Amino acid sequence: MRVSEIGEFGLIEHIRTIIAGYRDLGQHPWQKVVVDTGDDAAAWLSNGTIQLATTDTLVQDVHFSLSIVSWEELGWKTLAVNLSDIAAMGGVPEYALVSLAIPGELELDDVSAFCKAMAKLARQCGVAIVGGNIAAAPIVVITAAVMGRSNGRTTLKRSTAHPGEQIAITGYTGLSAAGLEMLRRKTVLDDETASTLRRAHLQPVARIREGQILVERGVKTAIDISDGLVADLDHICEMSGVNATVRMDRVPIHRALMANFPNHLELALCGGEDYELLFTADQETLARVKRALDCPVTVIGEITDEDLPARVTVVDSKGDVVSCDRGGWQHFNDEISESRIRQPGTDSTAGKLSGTTGAQR
Amino acid sequence: MRVSEIGEFGLIEHIRTIIAGYRDLGQHPWQKVVVDTGDDAAAWLSNGTIQLATTDTLVQDVHFSLSIVSWEELGWKTLAVNLSDIAAMGGVPEYALVSLAIPGELELDDVSAFCKAMAKLARQCGVAIVGGNIAAAPIVVITAAVMGRSNGRTTLKRSTAHPGEQIAITGYTGLSAAGLEMLRRKTVLDDETASTLRRAHLQPVARIREGQILVERGVKTAIDISDGLVADLDHICEMSGVNATVRMDRVPIHRALMANFPNHLELALCGGEDYELLFTADQETLARVKRALDCPVTVIGEITDEDLPARVTVVDSKGDVVSCDRGGWQHFNDEISESRIRQPGTDSTAGKLSGTTGAQR
Repeated sequence: MRVSEIGEFGLIEHIRTIIAGYRDLGQHPWQKVVVDTGDDAAAWLSNGTIQLATTDTLVQDVHFSLSIVSWEELGWKTLAVNLSDIAAMGGVPEYALVSLAIPGELELDDVSAFCKAMAKLARQCGVAIVGGNIAAAPIVVITAAVMGRSNGRTTLKRSTAHPGEQIAITGYTGLSAAGLEMLRRKTVLDDETASTLRRAHLQPVARIREGQILVERGVKTAIDISDGLVADLDHICEMSGVNATVRMDRVPIHRALMANFPNHLELALCGGEDYELLFTADQETLARVKRALDCPVTVIGEITDEDLPARVTVVDSKGDVVSCDRGGWQHFNDEISESRIRQPGTDSTAGKLSGTTGAQR
Repeated sequence: MRVSEIGEFGLIEHIRTIIAGYRDLGQHPWQKVVVDTGDDAAAWLSNGTIQLATTDTLVQDVHFSLSIVSWEELGWKTLAVNLSDIAAMGGVPEYALVSLAIPGELELDDVSAFCKAMAKLARQCGVAIVGGNIAAAPIVVITAAVMGRSNGRTTLKRSTAHPGEQIAITGYTGLSAAGLEMLRRKTVLDDETASTLRRAHLQPVARIREGQILVERGVKTAIDISDGLVADLDHICEMSGVNATVRMDRVPIHRALMANFPNHLELALCGGEDYELLFTADQETLARVKRALDCPVTVIGEITDEDLPARVTVVDSKGDVVSCDRGGWQHFNDEISESRIRQPGTDSTAGKLSGTTGAQR
């Protein structure tokens, strides 16, 4: 069997099972593990503090195209996507390692621009870049690892959602996917909109402080939206063993999307790389969080029950189920197609649907 | 200017300068940094403990060829080279993250073999694999990051060598480069030798316990031999601002090399990826270390003075200087040639000489 047949999430599960088989829980490091594989970051106890670590890779012509992204933007984004994983744990990012695999014919100025943008963002976020690695490669493959700590005695997790909790998101989703669509199709939009969408896709902002506020105000469950709203909520459902309902008409649509993208609902539900926080909480906790956060917070649905299989249902304003595949970006999908949500009665063509970011970025 | 023109070590220095320019030493993480970029691993203080972190990448057809290496060996080696960086700091490896960028057409069984071998080595070394990342890519690019801690109040560094100290190595060098030469040329050797050389190249053993013993017995300066003996000693010289002399006739040559490779001296001096420890110490400390270590320890030269430029001189048994370029593997070298050491009077062809591991691995 080939990797493409099992798909990204299947492969992750496969690898997790293998590693679990060799785990020796009696060994010192395993005894200290608080959050294992399968969450946004790993977490372990060290001298009473929860340490966090995460890694993310960007591959040329899979995650980015050099015909679209500038080296400054790439430097920013490489670090930002890792910072977002720490944010999704409610943590404080502290140290970073950066591994650059690049072709020798690359211009030194481009590498400089990349490093400067990354170092600038690191400084803004109080992160020290303390090491890394350089290697020659036929294409650009960049991996960063960010280490940090919990701000308190706990972290946000994917596995702690409970029936009855509200589901909420910070900010707006779909802007990054819309930005990619605009850049790839060379769509001409007004300057402000174009700039908003480009930034959303290429200079995402990790919700670091927001994640910390979630923990401080008692939220237990969160994930950052990298695969897509529905896909990432699906991760929470799987890890928590719960079902969720998303009310399509509650999903906040940014005016830049509403005005320019007829497929704005698909983008908001299935587009990836927003790096907003998706979280669950009871109403009282949610009210505290809303008062404490400066950014928009919108309730988009609720955790319903614990029946298996754990999954997400999207419903329209009448409460009718909208057929909405897990969506979101998945690596190794053989067929990349536009994402679609299918309302009852519409054509329900077979085949796996991927997020719009599923196409070569 | 292109990256290939400045070369790997030039690029590393260039990037270090950029990052240093954005460093805010008043920020909390920077205040805690004990060892910054430029050493085998980064180190910082956290609640009184020195934390260590390192990352290393293996790129298909640059670091390895799938026609030579098995997936088991690749899994082992990916983790081992990172463990070796922690060993070179005298530390205790604890946690690992693994980032796999792989083509979708890869066989799942191969990925399984890779993960099993890595998980097995992790278990052997008391390391918990707690996270990672999966991405589609046209070639295989694997990055691991290993985090650990110092076993005591200090770490081994590259920057602390002093004139008058002896230079010593654990085990033998050149076996890995010889293994690569054997595999690439399909040289037929007796089974035991072939197995020794293959293992040296594809299943290197990180000197973790040995590194810890070095720290415990008072050694301050060490590096693991990944670029090549002379190249790595050169790193110590640069970081410490000292000169070093290597006595060619003292370099231990393994019998497998002596019997089968006419170029055994070149392999031992310039071959890379041995993952032995190269360290400096005064005679008294060295005597303590020799008593404590189970493996061979050989004095191969001494740190001479602090005159600039800091560099390595190789001398023969008569004390005559042997022209031996820095050697070792460098990424981005345009011309890859066999390594050569040039004794006085022999042809001294111009051009940079790379280690034998410089060729496509």
